[in-house]
This record gives sequence, C-alpha cells and structure tokens, in this order.
Amino acid sequence: MANLPYHTPLGPDNLRGLGIPAPWTFGLADRVRFGELDAIGHVNHTAYLRWFESFRLPFLKARQVTDYGPNSPRLVLKQVECTYLAEMGLGHDYVVTGRVSRFRNTSFTMEFAVWLPQGPARDVAQEMARGSCIVVLLNRDAPGRYPIPEAGRTAFMRDDTATPDG
Amino acid sequence: MANLPYHTPLGPDNLRGLGIPAPWTFGLADRVRFGELDAIGHVNHTAYLRWFESFRLPFLKARQVTDYGPNSPRLVLKQVECTYLAEMGLGHDYVVTGRVSRFRNTSFTMEFAVWLPQGPARDVAQEMARGSCIVVLLNRDAPGRYPIPEAGRTAFMRDDTATPDG
Amino acid sequence: MANLPYHTPLGPDNLRGLGIPAPWTFGLADRVRFGELDAIGHVNHTAYLRWFESFRLPFLKARQVTDYGPNSPRLVLKQVECTYLAEMGLGHDYVVTGRVSRFRNTSFTMEFAVWLPQGPARDVAQEMARGSCIVVLLNRDAPGRYPIPEAGRTAFMRDDTATPDG
Amino acid sequence: MANLPYHTPLGPDNLRGLGIPAPWTFGLADRVRFGELDAIGHVNHTAYLRWFESFRLPFLKARQVTDYGPNSPRLVLKQVECTYLAEMGLGHDYVVTGRVSRFRNTSFTMEFAVWLPQGPARDVAQEMARGSCIVVLLNRDAPGRYPIPEAGRTAFMRDDTATPDG
Repeated sequence: MANLPYHTPLGPDNLRGLGIPAPWTFGLADRVRFGELDAIGHVNHTAYLRWFESFRLPFLKARQVTDYGPNSPRLVLKQVECTYLAEMGLGHDYVVTGRVSRFRNTSFTMEFAVWLPQGPARDVAQEMARGSCIVVLLNRDAPGRYPIPEAGRTAFMRDDTATPDG
Repeated sequence: MANLPYHTPLGPDNLRGLGIPAPWTFGLADRVRFGELDAIGHVNHTAYLRWFESFRLPFLKARQVTDYGPNSPRLVLKQVECTYLAEMGLGHDYVVTGRVSRFRNTSFTMEFAVWLPQGPARDVAQEMARGSCIVVLLNRDAPGRYPIPEAGRTAFMRDDTATPDG
Repeated sequence: MANLPYHTPLGPDNLRGLGIPAPWTFGLADRVRFGELDAIGHVNHTAYLRWFESFRLPFLKARQVTDYGPNSPRLVLKQVECTYLAEMGLGHDYVVTGRVSRFRNTSFTMEFAVWLPQGPARDVAQEMARGSCIVVLLNRDAPGRYPIPEAGRTAFMRDDTATPDG
Repeated sequence: MANLPYHTPLGPDNLRGLGIPAPWTFGLADRVRFGELDAIGHVNHTAYLRWFESFRLPFLKARQVTDYGPNSPRLVLKQVECTYLAEMGLGHDYVVTGRVSRFRNTSFTMEFAVWLPQGPARDVAQEMARGSCIVVLLNRDAPGRYPIPEAGRTAFMRDDTATPDG
C-alpha cells in the first residue's frame, strides 16, 4: 500500500476514500514497526495508546486548542481507555482517527479508532481498536486550570460535532 | 526508601505495613526510570500500563491461571483503562497492586492501583493511579477459547474475593 | 515536507534527489514521534537504534538475506554503535540510510546514517547521526550458525559495494 | 534471587560478593521486564542502553559531576556502543556496572557491563554484555561547553582509577 499518505492529516474525503465512515473527519496514517511488537509477535497494547498520543499533537493544533508555544496550556491526561477488536502485526498500514466528543470549560473527551484501510486486501476498512481519553488543560507555570480557547470550542462543535457539557 | 522490597510479591501484611488498604492482597514494588518520563518530565501515561503488564505475569502464575508453559492458554487483552490521580516523576518508589474482581468461563476483569507507600515522606500510602483490564484466554495453537482452570477460579474467589459472572 | 515518501524504500536516485550522497543506495523516511523524545525534549539516543532496527527488516529482505519465513536464519545482533552529530526534535522528517560494508560466511557489518533531507529549510541533506552493527546468522531451530545465502552475498557486493572478509 | 538489593548502589564489597570482579566499584541491580522483550522473546538490544542510561543518573550524582539541579550542566551523549555476549530473557536478575575510564576537560568516556550474579545457578557472575559511551557537558542555558567539576575529576581518578586525557 505504497500510496497511503503517511503522517499527513487526512480529511473527510480522504477517509471516505479509504473506507472509513463518518463521523470521522481527521486521520493520520502510519505503519507498524518491529519495536511495537511484543514477545508474542503482535502489536503490544501500549503501542495503540502511543498512536493516540501522536495523533493528539497535530489534531489539537488543527483544532486551535494549543500551538504548543510558551503561552499555551499544559495538556494532562486524566484517563485513557482502549478496546482491542483484532490483533495487529508487523508491517500493517493503519489509520488512526480521532475526534472530540464532549467538552467542558477546561477539559474534553476524545474518541479514537484504528483502521486497516480498504484496498486490494479488503473491501471496506476494518476497525482494529477503539479508544478514548479525557484531557485537562492546566496553566503552564501557575496552579489552576486553563479554559479551552474560544477558537477550540468552535472547532470542536463545527469539525467534530462535539457536545458542550455543563 | 532503600528497604522497599522491589520485584518481590508483597502479601496483605506487607501491603498494610506500607499503608496500602484492603482489599489489595498482592503487590509489586519498583522505581520510576528515566526512560519512562516523557518530554514534560513526568511519567508517560503508557508506563503505568507497562507496570500493570509486568504485574500480570507473576500474579497470574500465583493465581494458577497459567504457568506460561507450552500447554498454557494464550492471554489476550480485550480492554485496558487507566485513570491518573497525580503526576509521578523520576526516582519515585511505587507499589502496583492488582486483583481479579470478576470472572466468566474464559475471561476475567482485573483492577489495579499504583501507590506511593507510606514512609518518612507521607503518613499513609498515596494512590497515584487506578486501572483495569479484561483478559481473554485463548487456545495456544488452535482456534477457540480456553476455560480458566479450576485452580484459578478457586484462587480468584479465595484470594481476591472475586465474583463469578454468568 | 508532505511529499517525503515515508516507509517506502528509496533508491539511489531518490536519495540523491533528497541531497543524500553516495555510497548510500537504500533509504527509508519517517517522522520523529512524541514518544521518542526524552525528558529533555530531544530524541532519545535509543530511538536511533530502533530506526536502524526498523530499517534492517525490509533491507535484508531486499538484499535476499532472509524472507523471515520458517526456514530463514535467526538474525542476532552482536554489536551496535551510534555517534550523534546533532540533536533532533519533535516532527523532524528524517531518512535512514544503510548498507552492508563487510561480510564473512555467517556474519556481516552494516553502516547507517540519519539525514534531514534537503528542501526549503536546507540546501543539502544534514547528517544527524551515523551508526553500525554486526549481525550474526544462526540456525532457527538448531545450534550453530547459518551461512549468508549466495543471493545475499551477491547483493551485498553488487548493491552495497561490500567487501568479503576472510 | 529474592535477596538481590535492586535499585540500591552496590559498592566494591557488594559486587565481589556477587562474583563481579575489579575494577568495577559501582553497580545497580534490576530485573528484566516483559516490555523489554522483542518479538523473538529475548531482551531487545536497546533495553541494555536504557539500563546504562538509568545507571548514569545515580552514578554521576555519586561522582559529584552533577546534582541535576538548575545550575548543573546538560549531559549529552556523543556516542554509545554495546557488544552482546549472551542472550537474556524474561525475569533475569542482572547487575549493571559502570565506571569512567577516561576524561578530558568537558567530556568523559564510560564503560559498562551487564552481569548475571553468581548464586545457586552459577558459581561466578556471567558477563552478558559490555558497552561504552562518551558524554559531553554543555552549559544548560547558554552555548558552549561546561567543565567537569573538580570534585568529579577527583572522584573519577579516586573511585574509577580513570585516566585524565590531554
């Protein structure tokens, strides 16, 4: 699958072309590495959480939550969860999709999925895992929490059809 | 805390002596390593899941679920979850506790917690994170599931006060 | 640098186009991940060795040393070495190049380099690290060593201008 | 080997008691973890370099090179090397030993070894790997190099019988 555009943000049209359905509108493609396998020869369960972590960086920049600059909030994980649907192995090309499903003043919930894209080997994308996390925004150099910027709230609702909570 | 007995299964009395309450009856102590820190200087969120993974190996042997031999079941994670209560840093001495809370014929649910033990620095153990996972037993070299051995079911109920489901 | 062809073997022409000089004839591109940074915010020194490891798999298949099948040799590292020329950080797009420089009957020496390719940001590729390793071939299920297949020896000499030793 | 004192600096007498010979005078014990195994079931070659990294932190504090405080130098690796003598596996109890062999004004060379200590299973310690690295001291918040503190130079000569270079 040499044509999969790795490391490049994939939008709704790209994702549908890979067989990945709505509501996903942001994806990133990569390939399983040898170092992600465990002693059984399958992808270790922690690798998926690393993929979600790598996903969050460009995603949260695109959603205008942070530019990772000196005045940006510090993003702290409060909770992670992952459900494994099928085992993955060496050389698998996969797409991680993610979106914000809910948000409050200073925290938000993200959902993730991992897909083998459609192609010669399969007619539709296969969902291999799904996950979620809760992210809290803290002030970088002071105690206390940092409110989600207005541009981020707008993007969550517009691009992710996220629901504001409370 | 040079006297913390690292890598040695800790029973109920050991755990109470470290300020870790019931119902935990099995613990393992270790120390945070440099390689577990992320670019922010705190323990990366995936490190905790590695600690739970390391915990499962001696725990499931002690509970007689598997001896990891050629005739033992293949243990596959179906789900993991972790909630982070406080940030951890370099050199922290911690204890991971774990137990089986529920089980069915061919799968079981585990709960975990991570503690800073009581000592000169704190009067009672501080809970830093808690988590859970669902483990499924599969036949090693054939399709299909593998039933939890009777000795394992007995140990789950006796040592972990686990509840048989369905 | 959205056009860098990640995870795709790059031949001599591709490499020269990225400003990477002879004698390198095989390269693989990837991007630095968050999880590869250490607590100082730079790429951890072990990440480079992981990149070399990931490189070896498709490289040794292309060189016809192994197809990683049930009758293939077991490849064991005898020695690794890496020299760091400049610090790398988050999001860096890099190319790993590798070649066999010397070989004997049942072992060979590889050399590696890590490059930031030329582009808008730099006129020529910048070498960020270089390394080497010694690989020994063992029989998979029996004691003793496994000779490098003739096709591999030929490829080492033809594609890498490697020198047969002893 | 429940009595091996993990994570505790081991001096010359401790090391000799474990069958580890001169000139080693500083050691740290730990146990192989599941997450350090690769898809072949042996300890991955990068794990050893992580062990050396973990070793350096308390060692360089003990040698008074750095207290890791805000005015301490930034320690950067210039080179690493490791030679693998025997394969290691899950649950192996090991001791890492390290020393400074040579030093200049702003850099020094360290040597390392990994041992299975003597005990019921073996009469003398078995050396499993040996390695080395070159560390450069940089100013933390300014360009330029940082000289090894006088106390560090003294400790290198006294405790490690290191040779001042140039």
